[in-house]
Parts: sequence; C-alpha cells; structure tokens
Amino acid sequence: MTEELKKAAALKAAEEIRSGMMLGLGTGSTVYYLVQHLGDLAAAGLQIHATATSRATEDLARQNGIPLVDIAKVREIDLAIDGVDAIDPAYQAVKGGGGALFREKVIATRAKRVIWIMDERKLMPHLSHVPLPVETAPFGYHFTEKKIKDLGFIPELRTRDGEIFITDNGNYILDLAGNADMDYRIMAHKLKEITGILETGFFSPICEKIIVGTKNGVIVKTKER
Amino acid sequence: MTEELKKAAALKAAEEIRSGMMLGLGTGSTVYYLVQHLGDLAAAGLQIHATATSRATEDLARQNGIPLVDIAKVREIDLAIDGVDAIDPAYQAVKGGGGALFREKVIATRAKRVIWIMDERKLMPHLSHVPLPVETAPFGYHFTEKKIKDLGFIPELRTRDGEIFITDNGNYILDLAGNADMDYRIMAHKLKEITGILETGFFSPICEKIIVGTKNGVIVKTKER
Repeated sequence: MTEELKKAAALKAAEEIRSGMMLGLGTGSTVYYLVQHLGDLAAAGLQIHATATSRATEDLARQNGIPLVDIAKVREIDLAIDGVDAIDPAYQAVKGGGGALFREKVIATRAKRVIWIMDERKLMPHLSHVPLPVETAPFGYHFTEKKIKDLGFIPELRTRDGEIFITDNGNYILDLAGNADMDYRIMAHKLKEITGILETGFFSPICEKIIVGTKNGVIVKTKER
Repeated sequence: MTEELKKAAALKAAEEIRSGMMLGLGTGSTVYYLVQHLGDLAAAGLQIHATATSRATEDLARQNGIPLVDIAKVREIDLAIDGVDAIDPAYQAVKGGGGALFREKVIATRAKRVIWIMDERKLMPHLSHVPLPVETAPFGYHFTEKKIKDLGFIPELRTRDGEIFITDNGNYILDLAGNADMDYRIMAHKLKEITGILETGFFSPICEKIIVGTKNGVIVKTKER
C-alpha cells in the first residue's frame, strides 16, 4: 500500500515536468517511481536532461533512457524532485536515509524550484523523533563523534552488510538520535560548525511544494511565502 | 636565510617534547625540519608516537623512523606542532597552503596543546591580504564557487602541474582572494555554512604559543588567556 502511495505522488510530480527542462533527480524509493515514469515519458518524446544526487539514481536514469548531464557541466537546474525521510508542518525536512544527503542538498539549494514527494507516513508533527544523519569525513571521525555527543546527540556509525557505509563522496554517515527538546534547525547549525562534518540531513524549507500520497488520494501542498 | 629561521623555530619547538607523548605533526616546510630533528631524537632514545596531518608528513615521519599511529586509533593528542601561512596579532591564522587544512584543523582542535612554528615573514598585521583556502567537495563545486563569490571573494581553483589539486580527502582547494574590509573570522563562519565547503583555512587562536624564527633569534610568544 505504501508503495502505491509513493508511486501516486511520483506520477503527480511528473505533471510539473516540461520539455526542455534540466532536472535534478533525488534518491530513494519514491524517486524510483518517478525515474521509471520519466523513462516512459522520454520514450514518448519528452525532451529532458537530468543530473542525479547519487550513483544509484544515475544508474536508474541510464537504465530508463534519461539523458544524464554531469553536475560539473550543469549551469542551471530548472526543477529538483526528491523524497524526504520526514517533514514537519513548517516544511523543514530530514533527509539522508539513502546516504545521499550531501548531493541532495547541493542540488536542492541550487535548483530554481524544488518539489518533495512522499507517502503520508513522512508527515511528522516534530522532526526531533527522527534520527538526523550527518556526513562525516573518515579522518579523525571519532573526535567528531565526541563533539556530536557534547551537543546531546547519540551518534551511530551507519553500516551496510556489516561494513561501514561509504557515501558517494567517500565519507561516513553518522545517524544521530536526538531528543524532544531539540530544535533541529538550531542543532543543524551547531553540527555544521564541527570540524569533520561535511553536511547535515536537516533541510530548511526550500521546497515550493510537497506532493503526498495518502489513502484518500494525492495531496499537493504549496508552501506559503 | 628563511630556511634557517624555519629550522631554528622547529628546533626550539622540539624542546617541548617529552618521552611518552602522542604528537600531532603538521604539514609544510617548517614542520619538515621538526620531523627531521625528531628522527634524530627518536634514534637517540626519545619515546614518541605521532599522527600526521598529511600523507606527505606520514611519509617523512616514516623515513625518519618516527612511529606513526593511525588517527582512527588515537585517543588523545598531547601536543600538536604545525606551521602557519600567516598569523595576526590576535593569534588568528590562515593555513592550507600545503593543502592539508582539514586534517590540520582536526588535529589542532583535538590536541591538548598546540604550538605553531614559523619564520618571521608569517607575522601579519591583518589576515585579509592573504588568500584564504577552503576545502570543497568536487560534486557541484562551481555552484559552491558562485556562493563564495556572493560573499565578495574571488575564488581560484588550486592546480598543481596543470592538474586540479586533490586533497588527501579527495576534495578540491579553492584559494579565495578577499579584501581589506573583511574580517576573516566572520567570513570563515559564513563560508562554512555553504553547502559544499568542508572546512576553511581560518584557524581561531587555538595555539598556546607561537615560536618564530627571526633574524635576531628565536622568539617564543605565549598567548594570554
């Protein structure tokens, strides 16, 4: 059922895409449905180019026949579409479950327009119950970890199949368990100041709208400015 | 002559080293003389271990018979000794000429004591005449560059032998030309907030003393607390 909600949100988002656009493609299970659908649209004649937030999405786009442009050659991104791990009523989001938070943030902060797509489980009253991922340079990372603990978080080094998870940038991900007293906006700022942290998975409200698959249909919420 | 001043400062700093210490070794031409001298001291029986801020210093330490410990296994650093590119009267420094600013900062901010060694040319009334290096993730770096320009800097991508210079962390260095109106302490803060910048070469006054080789002998200045 959740998969259907994700897919419904992804298909709705695709309606925003016009021929000639340079897209920024996110990472994750909801974006998966978008990229698949874009492949159908491209095969039917839609002229798009895309740059991807992860090697996983690059591979997926390639399989679906979507022309990719290396980020180094991209001058403007017309529209970035990505998923979120959690989002609060102020459109603040936590991302990074897929390990691509840094590239996702680069593309989101550079795109002219950003749309976040999701199923309804991602809507949260507060973000502080969700672990906050941070991308961390491997060099001296246990010192970084200590600084993180000093801020009140409980960090856990992300692993996959028993090995340390390595990002596309060659770094580690620490998943930080916070507490209900924390304002992630403020904490993200403090975290970014720590030497060794490349970026956090806290995203300020940079989307123009969110598209949510719910059991009662797809809801589009446009952010007030 | 400058080389003699660097060497004199390095030898003076070595007097601070005691058997049993875990050292943090910096990078650059002044540290070169320190590591050479440490090799002699170690051969004469001084018991030290060290962790290094760069692969270059690791190689040098290895050649000089200094036992190295991987930063991942280091719990405490008793004393870090490093050079600077420029330092002002408030003991604020710019570093990163050698491309190792990130690892230098990790070790400096984690060490119990920090000593900076230099020749007298490094003493500056203001830092803003010195280019400020920043370590930048390659992914989307020209977007990062644009954000840097928005702050008033003129960035230049560092090259070596006609190729883009790559740090030990796999990143780029941008050398930022500032202007006389800039307070690098404030600018460093703003730069670190830009997505894509891992770390800046601005160092707050974290040294306990500086040791300066001058034409009139070696000067040791201890920072007031």
